[in-house]
Amino acid sequence: MKWEHKDVLGIKDLSAEEITLILDTAESFLEVSMRDIKKVPTLRGKTVINFFVEASTRTRTSFEIAGKRLSADTINISGSTSSLVKGETLADTARNLEAMNPDVIVIRHSCAGAPHMLARLVRQSIINAGDGAHEHPTQALLDMMTIRNRKGTLAGLNVTIVGDIAHSRVARSNIYGLNKMGAHLTVAGPATMIPRDIRKLGVKVSFHLEEALQNADVVMMLRIQTEREQLNIFPSLREYSAFYCLNRENLKKAKEDVLVMHPGPVNRGVEISPEIADGTHSVILEQVTNGVAVRMALLYLLTGAVE
Amino acid sequence: MKWEHKDVLGIKDLSAEEITLILDTAESFLEVSMRDIKKVPTLRGKTVINFFVEASTRTRTSFEIAGKRLSADTINISGSTSSLVKGETLADTARNLEAMNPDVIVIRHSCAGAPHMLARLVRQSIINAGDGAHEHPTQALLDMMTIRNRKGTLAGLNVTIVGDIAHSRVARSNIYGLNKMGAHLTVAGPATMIPRDIRKLGVKVSFHLEEALQNADVVMMLRIQTEREQLNIFPSLREYSAFYCLNRENLKKAKEDVLVMHPGPVNRGVEISPEIADGTHSVILEQVTNGVAVRMALLYLLTGAVE
Amino acid sequence: MKWEHKDVLGIKDLSAEEITLILDTAESFLEVSMRDIKKVPTLRGKTVINFFVEASTRTRTSFEIAGKRLSADTINISGSTSSLVKGETLADTARNLEAMNPDVIVIRHSCAGAPHMLARLVRQSIINAGDGAHEHPTQALLDMMTIRNRKGTLAGLNVTIVGDIAHSRVARSNIYGLNKMGAHLTVAGPATMIPRDIRKLGVKVSFHLEEALQNADVVMMLRIQTEREQLNIFPSLREYSAFYCLNRENLKKAKEDVLVMHPGPVNRGVEISPEIADGTHSVILEQVTNGVAVRMALLYLLTGAVE
Repeated sequence: MKWEHKDVLGIKDLSAEEITLILDTAESFLEVSMRDIKKVPTLRGKTVINFFVEASTRTRTSFEIAGKRLSADTINISGSTSSLVKGETLADTARNLEAMNPDVIVIRHSCAGAPHMLARLVRQSIINAGDGAHEHPTQALLDMMTIRNRKGTLAGLNVTIVGDIAHSRVARSNIYGLNKMGAHLTVAGPATMIPRDIRKLGVKVSFHLEEALQNADVVMMLRIQTEREQLNIFPSLREYSAFYCLNRENLKKAKEDVLVMHPGPVNRGVEISPEIADGTHSVILEQVTNGVAVRMALLYLLTGAVE
Repeated sequence: MKWEHKDVLGIKDLSAEEITLILDTAESFLEVSMRDIKKVPTLRGKTVINFFVEASTRTRTSFEIAGKRLSADTINISGSTSSLVKGETLADTARNLEAMNPDVIVIRHSCAGAPHMLARLVRQSIINAGDGAHEHPTQALLDMMTIRNRKGTLAGLNVTIVGDIAHSRVARSNIYGLNKMGAHLTVAGPATMIPRDIRKLGVKVSFHLEEALQNADVVMMLRIQTEREQLNIFPSLREYSAFYCLNRENLKKAKEDVLVMHPGPVNRGVEISPEIADGTHSVILEQVTNGVAVRMALLYLLTGAVE
Repeated sequence: MKWEHKDVLGIKDLSAEEITLILDTAESFLEVSMRDIKKVPTLRGKTVINFFVEASTRTRTSFEIAGKRLSADTINISGSTSSLVKGETLADTARNLEAMNPDVIVIRHSCAGAPHMLARLVRQSIINAGDGAHEHPTQALLDMMTIRNRKGTLAGLNVTIVGDIAHSRVARSNIYGLNKMGAHLTVAGPATMIPRDIRKLGVKVSFHLEEALQNADVVMMLRIQTEREQLNIFPSLREYSAFYCLNRENLKKAKEDVLVMHPGPVNRGVEISPEIADGTHSVILEQVTNGVAVRMALLYLLTGAVE
């Protein structure tokens, strides 16, 4: 199997074979990332631009470390310091970045579709590091890598995703990916957080956390935007956590060897109780470790494909 | 011809031979910058500090990429996070940077003359990346490189510069440079934007865009500060663009193979119509590409000269 | 003597032998840092994260240059752009950084003890780059290196520290270190700035600058927080400088070959008069130069010890 995409814009565009190729490649880079000399010369002389119009230390740092461990030159551009503030259009900024001849542009943007516009405009490879409420493909890939690593496979597993499904790019990318890989999906949350037509994606819906956890191999808790307090959106954090916070009690409904996941940063006591976040089921920090490896894999595959 | 300056503070200080040396050197680095492995070990073990007291993503990124493609270590310091906010003088900041023993300090500052003060204070090479309304030598060098690249020479060309000539460091540096290289210069703009004594620099003046475009080989459009709206400065953006926006109609006055240039970021529809900005005459993105090469050339020449 | 600590959290934890080992190591890196090719491959494939929750260009730049001159990959994370703003705890941020498998985390934080908490939580080496009013070990080490460099030894020297001793992490770390190395210490400042029980640390106290300077081999002036003006804290800057500003007159009380030091940034005319700051006794800029070498030494010793 050979990689043939110019860009990684969403999990929706990838086949099960392509996802498997990425995860296999990431496994080999995980070994690089954990050894004493954590560096290979693979991307020497390549330039990776991390263009984060929406701020994210965690994802930007992961991509920067991934690039550096491959010996690429990495350049960070953040929205607040970029020319965008001078009124330049995103398209013009993109063409300017293109003209400096990087090899890969990683973009995070608060508008859904921004990475896709860039991908059409510029000849370089674009990696979507999160676009609005649309997709966050590298998060889904690191989630799938973490599950596969622990369970040996994704096929046939019961995966429950809990939280604001309607506005979560993490949920959306994971639903696309886990579906393709043969997992059985259930989503759970208050009715206001579940999209009406989500069942069309082959997903079971539950409004009760304990019901949704029944027999789960994996539980993915989504992050709740704490800004909803200021915005007076229903439900409040307190109401949400009363019904949907994962704790020792309700987790008993899941399988004994259930994996607990969270994309971070965790609001302890809101989405997940501290004893579960730090407990034996939690693979939250493995997700972070695997994130570097997945991003190394994508940088490697994309720069190889471009040659 | 050998390079003998410690610093690059302005085009005013350079001879035609020195400008030619820089452009020739930049041409060779353009090749490096466009190939698959975009890196040479020339500046390995050298430290370049990008000290941007006035923000500029575009220029900072260009210098950072230039440094990295030469294998230099690059350090970014921005004004808002620097010790300046703690009340330290610029001179003390400069001496502190000197004490960390970098090889080159690139400085952008809102005060004219700041790079010159640094150059007198510290033993390292200083590159002016724009000082107030004074000079922006690397912009003028990349502009001249772009013209020479396309036209084969600068001598004898008719170059028209349009916009706020009085407050533009880009215009000032280009006027110095193009004059030395034998081009014929015309500046155009509303009377409030044209310095009274500009003719002394051997420049023709016009207040009418169509007249100024007559027979032009090159048209350089300057960026209008959109902040003038808030400041209630005459003319407004709307008034300015009614008379000085470059469009399909007025561009017909220029030569058939005219080059259209802009230092960016472009205010589309104010200084230049979208169809011209994206049209066949536009070399705006070549300017950006050549910017990296020109900056590589300066870093190379300055660190060689210091040895 | 072999280095055996996982972390460098404070001078309080180091023996005189360990301080000597650090200073000896730093001397050898000073040579690297001053030569033409300022780079050794010692830390190739290692990752150093500069995690500055409290802003500091000077110290961050020094650590970044130190890391790069050792060929480490350096990653900068600043407080304002970090996930902390999203409500994540410092402990969770620390565990996330750990999961990306760096080798060293350098942390500056406004809370005393933050580096110690990190050191207990994560397996990586932690370097304290300043925690609240507690310790600033790399500053004390570079100060001791500067004195030893000039005087040949620290033992038996009369060192006077002047300023807000009570709230200065620089003073605290230097008192621990200089005591261990056998110097004789005097602190001076207004009564409100001298901790009641400072004499227990084997330090002489004086409220009169001229008295405190008597026979001094070294004078360390501390930085006064200029924010005290807004906060209406007694004494004001004007009052402080009237009594404690180091100038040509009062410096005559010290030994003829006295060294004048300041951690920077200097408030000229408040802590120290310009003619003394720039005078022949001042080693302020040597402190900055030695700072890079001391940080190289620590990065080297810590990554060696971890292996």
